Amino acid sequence: MATVSLIGAGPGDPELMTRKAWRILGEADVVLHDALLDVEGMKEAAPRARWIAVGKRAGRPAPEQAFICKTLVAYARRGLRVVRLKGGDPSIFGRLGEELEACREAGLDVDVVPGVTSACAAAADLQASLTLRGWARSVVFLTPRLGKGEEEPSDDHWLKAALAADTAVLYMAGRRADQVCRKLIEAGRHALTPLCVVENAGGSGLRLQTTLMEVARHGLPALEGPVSLLLGDALSRAKAAQSGEQFRALEC
Amino acid sequence: MATVSLIGAGPGDPELMTRKAWRILGEADVVLHDALLDVEGMKEAAPRARWIAVGKRAGRPAPEQAFICKTLVAYARRGLRVVRLKGGDPSIFGRLGEELEACREAGLDVDVVPGVTSACAAAADLQASLTLRGWARSVVFLTPRLGKGEEEPSDDHWLKAALAADTAVLYMAGRRADQVCRKLIEAGRHALTPLCVVENAGGSGLRLQTTLMEVARHGLPALEGPVSLLLGDALSRAKAAQSGEQFRALEC
Repeated sequence: MATVSLIGAGPGDPELMTRKAWRILGEADVVLHDALLDVEGMKEAAPRARWIAVGKRAGRPAPEQAFICKTLVAYARRGLRVVRLKGGDPSIFGRLGEELEACREAGLDVDVVPGVTSACAAAADLQASLTLRGWARSVVFLTPRLGKGEEEPSDDHWLKAALAADTAVLYMAGRRADQVCRKLIEAGRHALTPLCVVENAGGSGLRLQTTLMEVARHGLPALEGPVSLLLGDALSRAKAAQSGEQFRALEC
Repeated sequence: MATVSLIGAGPGDPELMTRKAWRILGEADVVLHDALLDVEGMKEAAPRARWIAVGKRAGRPAPEQAFICKTLVAYARRGLRVVRLKGGDPSIFGRLGEELEACREAGLDVDVVPGVTSACAAAADLQASLTLRGWARSVVFLTPRLGKGEEEPSDDHWLKAALAADTAVLYMAGRRADQVCRKLIEAGRHALTPLCVVENAGGSGLRLQTTLMEVARHGLPALEGPVSLLLGDALSRAKAAQSGEQFRALEC
């Protein structure tokens, strides 16, 4: 085992963690973990380790990234086996770059264990494929959300990526979903493009099939868990509550 | 357990399978599996099940998709618990759409279990992030490869998606890598864009860091395993053999 293992925990259900992640957790002294859906279930893999929450949740105070990096390095330098347990896959919106850099600068031996990213878990929840042979040969994962101190590039960079790919999965897009959908329509994506909303991918929450237009007009209800928006013709056969009556029942 | 479980096996290493996939395999009577890297290792999850290879490998004869769908349904109708074990994640280049459709038409109860897709496994192998806060906010997965009977859309549809996203991962792109890289440069992607080559993501094989230009000029060596090309500035800090001496040593 490396001194520090940067591990993808998957979308939140401990059963959607890889067997490798589970095994390495069992060897850990310290686990620095994100705000995951079921931390208690994951603790079964390493009941004697020290579990420390360092998770960021939109809108709530949370440790700074620099603090997480520092803590990671400090524990490893004490000779402890450290696992950094991240939601989803560490290479996709996981701030992996910063933590790798901190470990490298400190001369620590690192390994990275991939995980199930929430787009894939959401697609499984919806029983839908993100690619379709002959119809959808590209799928983009992106976020329209800006981090603290980030500026929006003037050309709405993310819009181009969302338009060019056949299927788009928007991470961390629950809060401004109406604005995001309006921008997509204005930029040229068809207003009737099928759109699915998945709250708590891989767990339980809202699964809704609707259209860009409908969310542009009515927005989404306030949802507790993290939200993925999945967009494109590939989603037209998704298994989810249809919008319309059910959507209006949510009073959005 | 549903009658048919469509399961992502991850990139090939049995340890990169989810715990849920492993558990459901243990309940299967029949497993229809892709050409996975380590089928023997996976058989440990279900030693008494009947394992049937239905995998497609580029350039080799393999069962038709329609035959796979028919077989799946036929076993399920006999009352057997069927697992369809697919490489990577089923929703990404996994032909999930066709198999779901076949099961739905037959009125079978289905569930889908997500897996680690090879792009994420490749990124972990390279110890690189596919997104970088402030720098790379979109990552596209696509394939330039056409299936049997598919026609290339005139506008080189996949190129637009590869250009618009900050990071691009090309699946099944090993065979025509030089052509693919030339097209990307002609379409406007910078010739010195960092490019990583990963053979057998999540297993062992070539891990190379090079540039679009170098592969456009020299191509890739003939590789046995499936190849992912990862492209974008986010890959500039990847941990891989550097091209140059080592690249030339491969005589490509």
